[in-house]
Amino acid sequence: MNPWPVPAPDLPADVHPALAATARAAAGAYGEARGRFTRAQLREEVADGADGTPTMRVDEIVEAAVAEAARAAGVNLLSEEAGFLDHGSAATLVVDPVDGSANAATGVPLSCFAGALVLDDRPVEALTTWFDTGRSWHARAGEPTPFRTTGRTALKGANVCLLRPKRGTEEAWLRVANQADRVRVLCTTCLEAMLVAEGAVDAFADPGSDTHRLMDLIAALVTVPAAGGVLLDLHGRPLTFDPDLTRRWSGIAAASPELADELIATILG
Amino acid sequence: MNPWPVPAPDLPADVHPALAATARAAAGAYGEARGRFTRAQLREEVADGADGTPTMRVDEIVEAAVAEAARAAGVNLLSEEAGFLDHGSAATLVVDPVDGSANAATGVPLSCFAGALVLDDRPVEALTTWFDTGRSWHARAGEPTPFRTTGRTALKGANVCLLRPKRGTEEAWLRVANQADRVRVLCTTCLEAMLVAEGAVDAFADPGSDTHRLMDLIAALVTVPAAGGVLLDLHGRPLTFDPDLTRRWSGIAAASPELADELIATILG
Repeated sequence: MNPWPVPAPDLPADVHPALAATARAAAGAYGEARGRFTRAQLREEVADGADGTPTMRVDEIVEAAVAEAARAAGVNLLSEEAGFLDHGSAATLVVDPVDGSANAATGVPLSCFAGALVLDDRPVEALTTWFDTGRSWHARAGEPTPFRTTGRTALKGANVCLLRPKRGTEEAWLRVANQADRVRVLCTTCLEAMLVAEGAVDAFADPGSDTHRLMDLIAALVTVPAAGGVLLDLHGRPLTFDPDLTRRWSGIAAASPELADELIATILG
Repeated sequence: MNPWPVPAPDLPADVHPALAATARAAAGAYGEARGRFTRAQLREEVADGADGTPTMRVDEIVEAAVAEAARAAGVNLLSEEAGFLDHGSAATLVVDPVDGSANAATGVPLSCFAGALVLDDRPVEALTTWFDTGRSWHARAGEPTPFRTTGRTALKGANVCLLRPKRGTEEAWLRVANQADRVRVLCTTCLEAMLVAEGAVDAFADPGSDTHRLMDLIAALVTVPAAGGVLLDLHGRPLTFDPDLTRRWSGIAAASPELADELIATILG
């Protein structure tokens, strides 16, 4: 068992009630699951999700709690495992109940809830909550956040997070790593994007593996620009609301447009 | 400024008073420094350490607090920046005041205090404290810890942490990464070794860059074996107490001797 507690999320007072309720439900369910199951049990693949990837037990448990909270809040839900749950609302929460599932299962303390409120296909508000500390990042589209990116414009000497290299992306990965001053691989895109937003790192990039689904990027799509940075796809594909969970993007979160452009050019070689 | 708090370390009651006092002093000084200096100021290189590497402001501030606590506790101190401080005791604390200095400075929430109590050249007790949560791992040489490694014996499918690839170690790095199921780069050796000890990951390895000083590995040298794993050097050089801080090792922490051997064979190619 993982002995460490999962605190209640520390949320600003003005978070949309449906986002707050789902974040609290996710943290509560994850904390309870850590007390009931071993690390190996949490990691076990118990189903195939609506997005076509295997569902670990930890994903299944937390998503069930999130779906129940969304239903009680009266909003639709688009989520990794369940797909689109229509509760007859004009508002839809697009949620990654557990970002960094492998970390969450085995106990690497880097995993989070990430969600965005979408009205008429437009993401208007986002919340990301780091499970192991309760730290939360909240943003509204087009409103500046109190936390800011570093504003850095050059890759040389930058401090970056990368998705792990995969077969076919090793060379692009090493090109970025060799330019950067520091490289990290935390295996939790949503949390890494928040480190960009708060100025702890200069950028996060998927060096070309097209790994991300909408719910891996949509909270960052609201939050990183509100903090002064940018969130782009490597190939310039717009990140649009779409209940088709087989779509994938290669996400780049950067402290400035110039840094994003240099990362994209370096990855594309 | 980094707005997040640094809690007081959550320590077991039976930690040696000098280890407890230095861990508390480190966390207190780091928390205060986060409130007084910007991330850029904490990262600034202000001196060259006794180990031959540049000292960031965050290192200087935390080490000063640790040195004062060691003096007050009446033990000698061997530390990264100050070198050996002889306070006339038979006991020496070997301490990394801030492991993961770049993380600590910029606010990536992965940095820790790590220290070992050495009596007559023998490390007998160790304490590692993660600054951002206060979580602590305590061990006595030869006594089993309540937390345990995963016990995993095979690299294929393992869950590993690696030091970032550097020029000359890229191929070894990719050989390990391509065998493993999950790869992470957290840039904090002492904390990554504790994730091995508590069974969150199967192994941590420096793939051949000879980066580690004694204080980067000595807490793990006590803690990982007490949790059922091993702590080895890639080239079989014994990790012995030595105030000469120019010495370097290539550390491997693994859940089992078999996994350590396979990692070493894979890295050496």
